[in-house]
This record gives sequence, C-alpha cells and structure tokens, in this order.
Amino acid sequence: MTIEVQTPTENPRVHLPGDPNPSKDILGGKGYGLAVMHQLKLPVPAFFTIGTDVCRKYLENPEQGLPEELQTEVLNALRTIEESAKKKFGDPNNPLLVSVRSGAKDSMPGMMDTVLNLGLNDDTVKEIAKKMGDRFALDTYRRFIQLYGSVVLNIDKEQFSKRFDEIKKENGISEDSGLGLAELTQVVVDFKTIVNDSTGVPFPQDANVQLEEAIKAVFNSWDSERAIRYRKENKIDNNLGTAVNIQEMKFGNIDEGSGTGVLFTRNPNTGENELYGNFLQNAQGEDVVAGIRNTLSIEDLKSLMPDIYEQLKGFAELLEAHFGDPQDIEFTIQNGELFLLQTRSAKRSAKAAVRIAHSYVEEMRITREQAISRLTPQHINQLFHPMFDPEEMEKAKNEGRLLTTGTAGSPGAATGIAVFDSKTAEMLAAQGIDVILIRDFTEAEDVSGMYASKGILTARGGPSSHAAVVARGHGTPAVIGASDIEFDENMGVIRINGKEIKQGDKISIDGSTGEVFLGDFKLILPDKISNIHGLTDILSWADKIARLKVWTNADTPSDSRRARDFGAIGVGLDRSEHMFFDDARLKVFRDLILTPREDNRYQSLLEEIKEIQRSDFEGILKEMDGFPVVIRLLDPPLHEFLPNQIDLIAEIAKLKEQRRNKQGRFASLSEEERVERDSKVKQAQELLDAVVQLAETNPMLGLRGARLGISRPEIYDIQIRAVLEAASKLKKEGSNPKPKIMIPLITGARELEVFKKRFETISKETGANVECKFGSMIEVPSAASASEISKIVGLVDFISFGTNDLTQLILGLSRDDAARKITPEYIEMGLFDEDPFVTLHPDVKNAIQIAVEAARAVKPDIEIGICGEHGADPASIKFFNDVGFDYISLSPYSVPSSRLATAQAVLAL
Amino acid sequence: MTIEVQTPTENPRVHLPGDPNPSKDILGGKGYGLAVMHQLKLPVPAFFTIGTDVCRKYLENPEQGLPEELQTEVLNALRTIEESAKKKFGDPNNPLLVSVRSGAKDSMPGMMDTVLNLGLNDDTVKEIAKKMGDRFALDTYRRFIQLYGSVVLNIDKEQFSKRFDEIKKENGISEDSGLGLAELTQVVVDFKTIVNDSTGVPFPQDANVQLEEAIKAVFNSWDSERAIRYRKENKIDNNLGTAVNIQEMKFGNIDEGSGTGVLFTRNPNTGENELYGNFLQNAQGEDVVAGIRNTLSIEDLKSLMPDIYEQLKGFAELLEAHFGDPQDIEFTIQNGELFLLQTRSAKRSAKAAVRIAHSYVEEMRITREQAISRLTPQHINQLFHPMFDPEEMEKAKNEGRLLTTGTAGSPGAATGIAVFDSKTAEMLAAQGIDVILIRDFTEAEDVSGMYASKGILTARGGPSSHAAVVARGHGTPAVIGASDIEFDENMGVIRINGKEIKQGDKISIDGSTGEVFLGDFKLILPDKISNIHGLTDILSWADKIARLKVWTNADTPSDSRRARDFGAIGVGLDRSEHMFFDDARLKVFRDLILTPREDNRYQSLLEEIKEIQRSDFEGILKEMDGFPVVIRLLDPPLHEFLPNQIDLIAEIAKLKEQRRNKQGRFASLSEEERVERDSKVKQAQELLDAVVQLAETNPMLGLRGARLGISRPEIYDIQIRAVLEAASKLKKEGSNPKPKIMIPLITGARELEVFKKRFETISKETGANVECKFGSMIEVPSAASASEISKIVGLVDFISFGTNDLTQLILGLSRDDAARKITPEYIEMGLFDEDPFVTLHPDVKNAIQIAVEAARAVKPDIEIGICGEHGADPASIKFFNDVGFDYISLSPYSVPSSRLATAQAVLAL
Repeated sequence: MTIEVQTPTENPRVHLPGDPNPSKDILGGKGYGLAVMHQLKLPVPAFFTIGTDVCRKYLENPEQGLPEELQTEVLNALRTIEESAKKKFGDPNNPLLVSVRSGAKDSMPGMMDTVLNLGLNDDTVKEIAKKMGDRFALDTYRRFIQLYGSVVLNIDKEQFSKRFDEIKKENGISEDSGLGLAELTQVVVDFKTIVNDSTGVPFPQDANVQLEEAIKAVFNSWDSERAIRYRKENKIDNNLGTAVNIQEMKFGNIDEGSGTGVLFTRNPNTGENELYGNFLQNAQGEDVVAGIRNTLSIEDLKSLMPDIYEQLKGFAELLEAHFGDPQDIEFTIQNGELFLLQTRSAKRSAKAAVRIAHSYVEEMRITREQAISRLTPQHINQLFHPMFDPEEMEKAKNEGRLLTTGTAGSPGAATGIAVFDSKTAEMLAAQGIDVILIRDFTEAEDVSGMYASKGILTARGGPSSHAAVVARGHGTPAVIGASDIEFDENMGVIRINGKEIKQGDKISIDGSTGEVFLGDFKLILPDKISNIHGLTDILSWADKIARLKVWTNADTPSDSRRARDFGAIGVGLDRSEHMFFDDARLKVFRDLILTPREDNRYQSLLEEIKEIQRSDFEGILKEMDGFPVVIRLLDPPLHEFLPNQIDLIAEIAKLKEQRRNKQGRFASLSEEERVERDSKVKQAQELLDAVVQLAETNPMLGLRGARLGISRPEIYDIQIRAVLEAASKLKKEGSNPKPKIMIPLITGARELEVFKKRFETISKETGANVECKFGSMIEVPSAASASEISKIVGLVDFISFGTNDLTQLILGLSRDDAARKITPEYIEMGLFDEDPFVTLHPDVKNAIQIAVEAARAVKPDIEIGICGEHGADPASIKFFNDVGFDYISLSPYSVPSSRLATAQAVLAL
Repeated sequence: MTIEVQTPTENPRVHLPGDPNPSKDILGGKGYGLAVMHQLKLPVPAFFTIGTDVCRKYLENPEQGLPEELQTEVLNALRTIEESAKKKFGDPNNPLLVSVRSGAKDSMPGMMDTVLNLGLNDDTVKEIAKKMGDRFALDTYRRFIQLYGSVVLNIDKEQFSKRFDEIKKENGISEDSGLGLAELTQVVVDFKTIVNDSTGVPFPQDANVQLEEAIKAVFNSWDSERAIRYRKENKIDNNLGTAVNIQEMKFGNIDEGSGTGVLFTRNPNTGENELYGNFLQNAQGEDVVAGIRNTLSIEDLKSLMPDIYEQLKGFAELLEAHFGDPQDIEFTIQNGELFLLQTRSAKRSAKAAVRIAHSYVEEMRITREQAISRLTPQHINQLFHPMFDPEEMEKAKNEGRLLTTGTAGSPGAATGIAVFDSKTAEMLAAQGIDVILIRDFTEAEDVSGMYASKGILTARGGPSSHAAVVARGHGTPAVIGASDIEFDENMGVIRINGKEIKQGDKISIDGSTGEVFLGDFKLILPDKISNIHGLTDILSWADKIARLKVWTNADTPSDSRRARDFGAIGVGLDRSEHMFFDDARLKVFRDLILTPREDNRYQSLLEEIKEIQRSDFEGILKEMDGFPVVIRLLDPPLHEFLPNQIDLIAEIAKLKEQRRNKQGRFASLSEEERVERDSKVKQAQELLDAVVQLAETNPMLGLRGARLGISRPEIYDIQIRAVLEAASKLKKEGSNPKPKIMIPLITGARELEVFKKRFETISKETGANVECKFGSMIEVPSAASASEISKIVGLVDFISFGTNDLTQLILGLSRDDAARKITPEYIEMGLFDEDPFVTLHPDVKNAIQIAVEAARAVKPDIEIGICGEHGADPASIKFFNDVGFDYISLSPYSVPSSRLATAQAVLAL
C-alpha cells in the first residue's frame, strides 16, 4: 500500500497528501500548506490531516467520542507515515513519534492545542535514548508528559512546574541544563505520579490511546473559552471547526548539524526582496520563539550550512511563486537534512506591504488593480499616524524592550507611566502627567480614566471589546488583548512575559501594530508619501481608478497644506468655529455671547470677529488655491464657548471661601485684596448666569447650527461676508479661490430659503467678484427624508451628509454617551454588527440611499458629499461609492488610505 | 331709480342690497349679515358695501387714492341711501349722517377702524340741533371730530382727551354730563383747532371729502401693525382685505322711546333656548359695551317696550332659522322704531355649544353628524380642565372683578399674586408662593420665570406667540394678548381697564376662556360628562361614527378610573416607572441603582420592587377589567431617579462649610454633631459619585428604554414578572385582565428579539394563565424605517408610536430646549406652521405613514397606536385616522374631547 494509490472515499475523514485539489476549508491553513508543499515535492515530514468537517461532526456530541470509522481511517493513514518514516508507531524497537497540531482555516495563533512527541512511553523512550542519547530522551519524555497532562488530561500546568522546581531545589540546581540523568528520571517518575493522582489512572502507555485522546483534545480546544472569545472578537464563524494534522516528528536539537528556524521570503519589515529570518543550531522551534538564546540570521545559515541555505532559498522562491505572495516558512534541520513544517502568507509591516505590492507589479507578478486590492486602507493608515521613531524602536527591540504584542485596538502611538486603575489614571492625568492605563479589561466605570489617559493597554478583549470601542471613539491609542500580561493579586505590579512592571514605570504602546514597549519613545510625525517606497505610484494608480474624490476636513491653513501633500483635492469641511478655540479669540467670542445685542459694543465685536475669520478663510483658500473649500457656518451651541457650569460654581465657592475667611481665624486678605476678590466673584457670577441661561438638557438637540443662524443672523452674516471678502481679495491678487458656504443642521427647505436670501443679499452688498457655491449639510432625519430633500436640492449647489449627527438621530444614540456605555454592550450582544460611529449602520445607509435617490431624481447633477467620521471608513466608503456620492471628506492623515479605499470601492464592484 | 332695479356691473365695486346671492368673501361678515337681513325684509337702516376686492386693489398703491370709478359708484350708492332715508348727505337743511365701518370676512374685533356720524359739519350740526336738540348735536359733533381726527387724520387721541379734561377743569366740572352748551361749544371749537394745528388744514367741512377719507382710513387700517399681528397670530390670510359698510345713522339716545342693545337668540352661557341680552334706554351702542350704566335685561325690554320685544323675538327666530345657528344681534330703537344693525353667529361657552348642538338635533334642525361637526374638541376640552368654581366666577363678574378678556393661550385656571418680572417670579415661587407672571410679552429670558409661575398673562401676542407656546409646552395656564393691560413706566403697577394692580395683588386667570379676574378663586375638578347637558348623547353618537379607539395614558388606578368615567376603553400607556416617583418608593429604587449588582442586597431590592409593581399593576388592571392595558417597561435614564448634580454639589459645599466653621470664629458644632455632619458629607459625596458616573451629555440619546433593558436585564425581568403575576391573580379571582407589555426606545428588530425571548421564558417560568400581548414602541427613526419595521412587526402583537421622541429625533430638536428658545422663533418666522410638539410636523407624518404602510404590508392586522402628546391634538387625530391607526392614547382629561375628534376625523374624510 503506497500513499499515492490510496483511493479517497467520497467523504474522506482523513486526508492523505496527494489530493490534486486540496481544500483549505477542509484541511485548515496548516494542512493546506503541507498539502501544497507535498504536491511541490518539497521535503515535508510524512503527515495526514483530519478534516474540519470531522471536528464539526464530533463537536455535535463530544461525549460519544471519535467515530469508529475515523479511528480505522486514522490507523490506516498512520501506516502511510510509518511506511515513509520506516518506523512504527508505539513500536518499542523502532518507535515513530508524531506531532498532533490544530489548524483552522483562519489563523488563530495560540488559541488551540498542539501535542508534540506523541508515541513516547516507558518502552519507546528507551529506544529513543539509544538513538538520540539518554538526556535527550528523558528531557523529551518529561516535556511530553507535562504537555499531554495539561492539554489532553486537563491537569493544571502549575503542578508540573512546581514539582520540577522542587526537584531542582532539592538537588541544589539553578539552571534546567544542570539537571542530571538521575534528576530527569526523578522528574519523569514524579510527573507520572501527578498524572495518576490527578486522573486516578496511570499515564497512558498505549500510543494509540495517546493519539485518540490528543485528537479529541485538539477538537475540544476549538470550543475553549479563549478560542470562542477570539473568534467572536475577530468575527470568525464559530461553526468552521479545526483540522488536525498528524505528522512525523523531526528534531532540530539532536546535534550541531541540526537546527530550526523561520524564513520570510521577503523582508517583512521593509518589503525588500531578500531572504529574512531567524535560525538556531541544535534547537527546537520553541527556543526560537522563547528568545532564550540569541537567534542567528538567515545570513548566518548561509555560512554555517551553505547547502541547506541554497536548498531553502530555492524552496522559498518556489513557494512564493506558487502562492503569489511572500511566505513565512518554518523549517527544521535534522542531522543535516532539511524539512519544511509550515508555509503561510507572511505577516508584514504596512511599509513592507506597500513595497511588496509595488514590486510585484514591477516584477509583472500582478496587475496594478491587484496591487491595489492586496493592500488595505489600514496598512496605509498605519503609516500616517503619529508613531514612534523607527530607529529608536529597532534599538528597543534589540535591547529586549519589546514586552509583548497584542491586538492593534486603536491606532496611534503613546508613551507614559503605567497605571493600573482608572481613578489613579484620572488623578495623575489631572496633574498633567502622561498616563498609560493598563487593565485586565475595561468596563463603563473605567471610561473617565480611559479618556484621561494617553494610551490604553488591556490583557483581554479584541477589536470590538469595550476598551477598543471606547479608545477608537475617543481617538486614544490602544493595544488590546495582550494576553501575556499577568496581574498580581495586590495590583501593585504586573508581569509581561516574566518582566515586572510597577505602577509608575515608563511604558509605550503602538496602537497601530499592537506592540508594547518598556520605556519611553520620541513620537514622530507621520511620513511623507514619497518616503514610502512605491506608495506614490500605487496611490496615483488608485486615483485613476477611483470615482469618489477625496477631500479633507481642515480648519487651518496648515491642516490644508498637509492634506494637499497627502493628495486631498478639496476641503469638504472647514469648521468655521474651530478658529475661536484659540484662547485670545475665545475671549472675543465669549464677549460677543455675553454682550447684549442692543449694546454698542456688540457691533464692534462682530466686526472684530469678521476680521479674524476673513484672515482665517484667506489662509485656507490660499493653501487650497484652485480647489474647492467648503466652509461650514457656526455649528455648536453657544454654551460650548463658555466655561463649564460646575467649574464656575466651584470657582465661585472657592472665591467666596477666601472672602469668608476674612472673618474667620485664618483671615489674611487685605482690604484691596478683598475688593478684588469680590469683583471676581461678581464677574464669575455674571458668567454663571449666562451659562445657566444658555444651558440645555440635550445640547445635541438644541440651539445650534442653522438654529443659531436663525436666532443670531448677524453671526452668520459676518461669516458669509468674511468668506466673500477673503475670496475677493485673493481673486484680485490673481489666485483662484473656490469657496463654498454650507449651512449646518437644517431640518428642511424653509430654513434654507431664509439663509439663501441672506446669502444672495450679502453677495450683492459685498459685490464679490468670485463664484461662491451655496450648500447644506444633511444631518437631521427630516432633512434627509425624500420629501424634504427634493425641496432642498432646488435651493443648493451641493449637499453634504453629516453622518455623525445623522447616525445619532436615526438611532437616537448620543455618540459620547453611547461609546461609554451602550455600543460595547450592543456589539458584544450582537445588537450592532459594528460601532455605528465607525461604520455606517444599515438603517443609516438606507436613509442616505433614499435621500440620494430623491435628490438625484430632482437634480441629477447635484454635488453630494460626506463630512462625518465615516468618510475615512473603508466599508462606508464602499457604500458612498456605490450610492453615487461625488466626494468624501476626512482628516488629513486619512487622505492616503482613503485614496486607496476609493479605488478599492470601484474594483470590488 | 330704486335699489332693486340697480343693475350690477360685471365687477361691481360697490354692492347695494338686493343681490340674491350675497358673497361673504366680497361683503365681509358685517356686510353679509346686513345683506341677508335686507333680503329677509328686516328693518335695516339703508346701507351699501364696498367689497374686499376694492380694498385689495387699493392697498397695492394706497398713495394713488381711491379709483375714480369707485368715487362715482359710491356717490350713486349714496343716492339710494338718501332716497330711502329721505335726507341728503351734506345738505345743511336735511342732512344725512352715515357710519363707515370695516368688516372683514373673519371677525377681527377691535382691530380695524370705524367712523360714526359722518356728514356732520358746522352747517349740518345746526339742522341736527334743531331736530334732536342742541346738546345732542354738539356732543355728537365733538365726538365725531375726535373720532375722525384720530382715525382718519392720525392725530393722537390724547390731544383731544387732554383738552377736554382741561375745559372741564377750567369750568370746575367733574362729570361729562355736567358740561353745558357753552362748554360743549368750546370743546368743538378747540377740537377743530387741534385738527388745524396738527394737519395744517381746517377740519374738513365737505361731507364727500369726509367720506372719501374715511373709506381710505378703513382700508388702511387693514394694514395697521396691530391688524397684521392679529392676523399672523390667528392665521388669517393677509391678502383678504376688508369691506367697508356705509349706513344711515340711527340714534338710540334721542329720548326714552329710544335705546340700543344686544340680543342672543339662545343663552350663550348655558345654551338654553331663551332670549338673552342687554339693553339700555336712551343710549348709544358704546354705552352698553362700556358698562358705565347698568344694563337692563331683555326681559326688561319686554315690559318697557312690549311691541318692540315681540318684533325682536320674531326677528330672532327668523334669523336663527335662516342661519341655522344662534345669532348675536345688535339693534337700535330710534323714537320707538326698531332697527337691526348687525347679526352674526353667537359666541358661546363650551357648555352652551354642547347644549345647542344637542338641542338642534332634538329640534330636527341638524343631523347627529352635523351636531358633531359643529362642536370643536377645544369646546369639550375646556369642560374637562381644572377650572374656577362657576358660582364664584359668576359672583366675581357681578362684583366687577372681571378685569379683561384676552386670548385663551394655554388651558387651565390659575390663581396667585401678580408679579411683573420673571426674576421676581422665580424668586417668590422658590419660596412656595403661587405667582401669576404678567408681562407685556415674553422672551427667552423669561422662561425660567414662566416655568416657576402658576399662570401667565401677557398684554401682547396671540396663540402662536412665545408666551403661548412656552406655556402650552409646560402645561401652564396662560391668557395672552390682553391688550387692555397698560404698563406703568416704573413697572410697580399696571392698569387694566382703569383698575390698578400692584405687584403682590391677588389675580386669577382662566386660560381656557381668556378671562382675567381680580382676587383669588377656588379651583374645582372638571365636570362629569353627565353633568353637561347633551354631552353623553353627543359622545355616544361620536363613538358610533369613530374608527379610532380612544385609550388613555394612566399610571395609577385613580387615573384609570377617571379615564373610564370619561369613556376611555383601554390604557395605551402605563409608564411603569412613574410609580417610583413617590418618595418612599423612590428610596427603594435609588438603593437599587446605587447597590452594586454583586451585592447580596441587590436581589432583595429587586424583589421588593417587583412586589411594589405587582400591586400597582393589579390595581390598574382591576380598574380596567376587560379592557387592554399597555404597560411600558422602564424608560427614563437611571440618573433621573437620583438627585440633581448641582444640588448635590451645593449641599456638600454647605455641609462642609458647617464643618469648617468648627475651626472658625463662629464654630458651634458639638463633637457628635460634627461626626454626624461628616457622615452626611460622605454619603452625599458617594451619591454625587454615582450621579457623575451616570450623568450623560444628552440623556435623551443615552442609556434609557430598551438600552436599560439590555444593560440591566434583571429590571425588565421583574417588571414582566410583576405584570404576569398581577394578571394571573386577577384571573384566578374571576376578573378579565388584558395586560400588554411594551418595550420602549428600540432601534430595531434585534433588540426586540432579545426581549421577546426573555418575555417568553418568563411567561413559561411564571406559568401565567393569562394572555399577555407583546409590543414595541416606535419612537426612534431607525425603528420607524421601512426596512426595520417590517422586521419588527413579525415579532410583536402591536406597535405604538411615541411621537414625542420621534419628533425630537426626526427634527433633531429637544422638546424642552426647543420650547424655550427655538419653536417660538421658528413659528414667528414661518419655519414651522405649528409647534411640532403639539401638532405633528409634516416630516414626522411622512415618516409615520411610511412606517405604517411597511408594517401593514407585512402584517395587515398588526395593532397600531400612538401614545405621545399628539394623541390629543385634533389635527394629528385626523392624520392617525386617515393613516389607519387602531387607537390613540391620551391623558384622562382629554378623553372626552378626543372622542369627539375621532368622530370628526371620520366625518371630515
């Protein structure tokens, strides 16, 4: 019986290599890689795979055990390995050892179980000792008992480690390598005793029993709590199941002619076309990962084992060519013989992804469209967030300061002191200290602390966890689910991969890569497009494909310049009021709010504000010369420009207290001081009166946007005047300003009629010689309704959907309040598929689609854009593309990624 | 030339009596009444009418004066009056005097001008003196000069009154009646001098000039500021124009055989079928209105002038029969000869309106349907608001305590002390004093004061003014636009029809009738249906016609009972949380909110709340035995059950202050007191922490409704349990409870699936033997969208539109904030037709219509209701009827009026 002639049954449970059309769905990722390498006649240790369908079937009734027929098939398949290996499973004279590994379709790193060296028992260990040496055999046996005991028999790992440490202590040995044969024998004996005591039966000596139980354990690990949580967070279907790969063991730790390593077919950090990887002589795979010994580079392999290197190089080229994508290959060398254990698409940095895609086009491996489709907007986005100095980071990695890598929860990098509870975080942040909040996981009561922190790090959770949602919502960098973090009971200290971190230690996180570092870093501004190898080309290809124009949200000339550099071809949202948040200007605007309109000063304050705005608008229009600039008139409620009510009450109480002490024992104020104090109290009290007067129960639904324009028309008037005057001046100077004025928060056409009349009147009055378009935001459901919007479009040159407010109103959900308390729970419970403030909610999409259709029905060429947060979300961009928007507008840093996303939206059609 | 043969031109400018089809549009209300009376051959002084179309034409270019042709027609028409009167206009030997009165299609009382006794001049006055006596002639002449001077020549009335008073003073005369012929002559001379001095030309002696100018003045008064304001507030088309009626003067003040009066063909207060009215011998119309002399009743006329009385009685019957509605008739008796000057539909009290409609059916004058159509829901509503004791009120009227009558701005009656500024109102109200805020008009800054007051009274404004909108929104009784109120400069005192009111004086207003009284009144609960003559019948006729069922919003057994008495046949909204607002229960619920869920106490608190709710639900279900009761699960955010943040901060500051004084000069706390104080501070601080934790920026869009049910499922669970247990118990006792459970604030079907599962599980667990329906509110736009609602209806037995929240979200407008600052301005500017929280906004209607159609398409028999404030609004009821709702739900007091409105909705189809 040979492998090749094995006739597959119609629904084979066990898959031998040789199937001409291997299916990743059935074989899982690892099994598929093995099958392909076998097909390519690469040196793969003999193996077979139990399909994911078996797992699914088994998990319906795990208590019934493995099906009878499966056991027969497995034994048959085992024969093929024995034949190839020329060893026999469980044979004391020539024992075959195998590995039993999980392998789901989608990679779930570390989530499921693996058992190595299966087939060892009291008899076979002796034969292994003969062939490989006593020490090797005993050490392998004690590792096997521990792994099998914990993974298959569910015995607490700690029991084994504890006993192991005791034996070392009893014998005065400090290093594992100091253990002699006697002590190792003792370990094996004691480990078997632990198994016997814990399970009531001896450690199984029958290799077939070992195998059957290990297969069941791997299957069962699909339904482990952590695996379920991982799938939930990574949106992997719970019903897929895992395959099981059974493969002949090869050993890289027999002698100096052995070794093990990982090879990337291209540099995963830079994307350069060169072999890259790590290698250790006389070592096991786990040694490479554990980082106990300093690994060698692939270059070292070239000099140490030139034949192996050449062989590996050939295999690497073959595999990359076959898969059409750089590979990450695991290999083991046993006695000078090379074996490949795994191949898969190589994980790569954003920079590398871009360079590889670009090179692939140059190497004519893929088309430009394919290159665009292979990148993700997230890749590009990572490159344009403030990040750590890469040199410093490389150095830190060499110094062993990389503590762990978790899930990239919210992009951006942050440095600060480690704090383990939210209240302390809040307190320290209030003192101006940069804080990284580290929690096992976060809950609603952590939110104030999270908001106060520079970065967030959690041990548990995934991209949709509370921590990630809150952090993204607030724009705080976050690394989530860094499961290596261990919390000490007393919370004064945490451990990450054995390193102890005390509260107050400096720590840094990169929310774009998931990396966590000890110590602090310099933050650097994002890269230029031209500095990323290949990106200029790729984005220019994307621009040619894209239908949506990418504009930017910019409130300052410098924002505009940055966005232009990133390729934005317009400003879709200039929040005119943002210019007032500067301290000096805020004072003028506050004065205006607090001055009665009858007061003579009111008019001069208005004039002052107009001059400020005129120069602001001039700056932006100049930077955006020849490109459209949409200026949104004042939107937030006036009380946003005034101090907080509670702060004012506190201040008054404090001032009064000082005044009162005058009569108390600790009085120390002079008469002048008292007078000054009293006048301050009076001022604060007046301010408080104004604040109370303007306060609203639900400011989101209050006197803002168009309503301000109705109630304080003079403010909108000067804003319009400022825009027209700025543009006129530029025009006279020979520039080509393209201003567009946009009214926020209208409920319907009637308000727009009022503003349009004002706009036309002022246009005539200023005699502006520039064309200025007039448009409206659509962010209130009434305005988005078919009947209103068909009236609205008759009045405007363009409309722009404010998807933040629209989402808030359609779902009746405040973004701030929801992010803290509602959205995480709703996602957790499957009530929302995504955070509706990141990716458009289906009901909001429906509303927008109805609005767009109604608008186009009346005015087919009406310009339609979007200026909410969703403008930078790829899934939402796809929707805007499909519905027929003209432009999207987003923050400058999101311009490059969105240029890619707009092209992908077209290609995915 | 006789009147009847006059051939009307194709577009006559001037209308002589005799047209067989007089048009109210052209003739105005007064002219139309005169024309009809003429047709019926009743004794009407000769007259003709200039049509409203002439007014419209004239007002296009008033500076061009009256058209030439009009003047000719007027002179021709004047000839017909001369012929009939056998006098000549302007003829010194036999002068004809005429009145020139405005008369628009819709009554605009007091808004436009009237000139009497036109035709008097230095010559004709002599002839009048000969015929009617010197005193009469001179007195009439000086009144004419004053009226003509102020109305036509725009001379300040005050100039005349001042001179008049001076002459009285110079001659030592205190009463007008004390003026002798010499003094009256002096008055006439001086008045003419005033005219000459003010206008630069003498008082016009040419009767034709007088007439032409008077006609122009009446036309111009259509566009006077007050008339424009009145029309805006009463939604009367600005383009209608007024007619002008020119009529021979008749005098009721010649002798004891003369007189004048007003006759109602039925009692306008009670509706009884009896003549009712006032009459004065030897008097002018204005004497009856001014109330200077005590008027006689119509009964007195019967004994004084039996022939006239009988004649009048006959005319009354004839006119009522002709118009098919009780009439309000003005008459004058000159030398024993009766003349009718005006007839119009009689204004009547709500009670009278009901009785008259009912009687008309009994008298077979109208059908039941017509009776229903003739009443307004507002009529019925007035009867069922808390009101003043009618006996006390009648007495007060007799005592002259009725100060004035304004527009009924917001229904209900209120008594309190008069306060003239909002800050004082707020301050006094804070001390528990009942305040009636009296303002010229109100603005945004008055709102806090308005909220603090028991009632609001303004001199200016109409039903859509700021004051009315805010008052209705807040449920505060208000009388608006009581233009008799005069504000003194120093604001310490106001005058109403000459009576002085100081700040602090007791005053009472009836916002349902517009009446303003001096002094205070006992408030009484609304009447029973059976106490209003005819109402039981009319509402039962209405019930038979209506398609919509009228249910009620009721949170207590007593609410339910009252609503049953008023004819509600179900509870459409039982706000389950309202039961917690009682102090003792609030404590339990607060404890629950503040107790951590892990705490052992939590479960027992839940149990305690369940028991409270069980008994509440039992009470309501019992009162509503056999009728459906929709119980809405907990809706408001939890922080609504906790104290206000700012109050807590203030309390803590106060407590700390007391603590601090211990160390200060005024320390006086004992050690125990200090300990107690400190513990109070700690408690308050803990409470504050919880409040801050739960605080939301936009609570309307926060953690409430279904979101609470998701985040704290145990609360919804016990509520469902309490409903089922209460119903089960009643069922066992032989009752027929019909509970329905309703989930608030869902965004879509997914949340409902969660709740439905819980509901079904708990139903099974409790083993309840009652049918309990399961339903959902539709109040979030996403839930109302066609795609969501078609999924929702598959899960529920019924849906109920929460139109308050739906309006807030569709318009992005907070009801509370909007009412204070936005809605009044939006209505003023025509951006809203109505207050969207009173009458459904068109965009909200559209959304509901789309939702209902989508729902019915999936499940044609789905039960659909509404439980927002709009349920009691007649215009909205019409919409709910037309769209095919099954029921409306509203406050108990609105049940009777809504029963009428539901029938009217069908009849108006």
